Amino acid sequence: MATGSRAQFVDVTRQVYAELAKRGVKNGMCYVYVPHTTAGITINENADPDVVADILSTLERLVPADGSYRHSEGNSDAHMKAAMMGFSQMIPIIDGKLALGTWQGIYFCEFDGPRRRKMLVGIAGE
Amino acid sequence: MATGSRAQFVDVTRQVYAELAKRGVKNGMCYVYVPHTTAGITINENADPDVVADILSTLERLVPADGSYRHSEGNSDAHMKAAMMGFSQMIPIIDGKLALGTWQGIYFCEFDGPRRRKMLVGIAGE
Amino acid sequence: MATGSRAQFVDVTRQVYAELAKRGVKNGMCYVYVPHTTAGITINENADPDVVADILSTLERLVPADGSYRHSEGNSDAHMKAAMMGFSQMIPIIDGKLALGTWQGIYFCEFDGPRRRKMLVGIAGE
Repeated sequence: MATGSRAQFVDVTRQVYAELAKRGVKNGMCYVYVPHTTAGITINENADPDVVADILSTLERLVPADGSYRHSEGNSDAHMKAAMMGFSQMIPIIDGKLALGTWQGIYFCEFDGPRRRKMLVGIAGE
Repeated sequence: MATGSRAQFVDVTRQVYAELAKRGVKNGMCYVYVPHTTAGITINENADPDVVADILSTLERLVPADGSYRHSEGNSDAHMKAAMMGFSQMIPIIDGKLALGTWQGIYFCEFDGPRRRKMLVGIAGE
Repeated sequence: MATGSRAQFVDVTRQVYAELAKRGVKNGMCYVYVPHTTAGITINENADPDVVADILSTLERLVPADGSYRHSEGNSDAHMKAAMMGFSQMIPIIDGKLALGTWQGIYFCEFDGPRRRKMLVGIAGE
């Protein structure tokens, strides 16, 4: 997947559902894993895009990109923000569907883009 | 479950154990999932309630409810706090018991209550 | 495992791999769980140690050890920092290997050391 800016949440709920559809599991667990250190994965509101904007701006206020860091690549903030959101999420599968709440979407969290990124989706169950 | 105030940690360790007892799994994994976007789930000390109070007050200091946000519902802080705690926890099951440490309890994290809330408990193993 | 200072990230990738080698699973999921409340587990860059130093100093800036807390043991910051990093990580197993990204290492996060600590590694799959 290609991200488009330095910091951006990409709604990947549809891609995760597409993996589930391929596997046809009725009851089990879905795992989403990000094999990066400056990008993470979270779950949050999929209705009002202002929620995601507020999360991004709060992360930037707490961990500013231009803060004082030792790591010379200039992306220490991105490593920290990714760790705060996490590198994996798991969502139960019930009756063939992700047990996401009404307002929940799955978001890939880019903090050092734009870049090409990967995401691994695992499905376990029957 | 019903929460009683805007921000509150509810110890749900007993409810998770009750689900495990129903299933009788000896070795495996227990998953707790929160299908909300303004509530999360975490693990922390179950002995001194001041620990939970300190976590709540630290979250409020870092992400104040009355901060400046775009989302018009007035609960952007709750979305961020929930993302910081996480929407799922997993605990190994060993010899029929949750492998919680001596001081660990499982806490449902309400950040936009009081409300009716749900929690999903999954058990995998043999 | 013994940690050596109050706050320290210990690279445990090798130990997790050693558990995987014992079990010989080809495809599945690896779970790492920390049964403590003042230590956590995360994933981050394994190349430049400055990244880990920056994460530790950012956590200390956000949640200072000498801040104002109610809990009388003087380690409330450690409880909060551990909750921010998380108490478990899961990593997919593909073709007998952990699907860690090129720069990813698994870090045990000590926040109230030095101490003796435990970590549980679970492997599921075939």
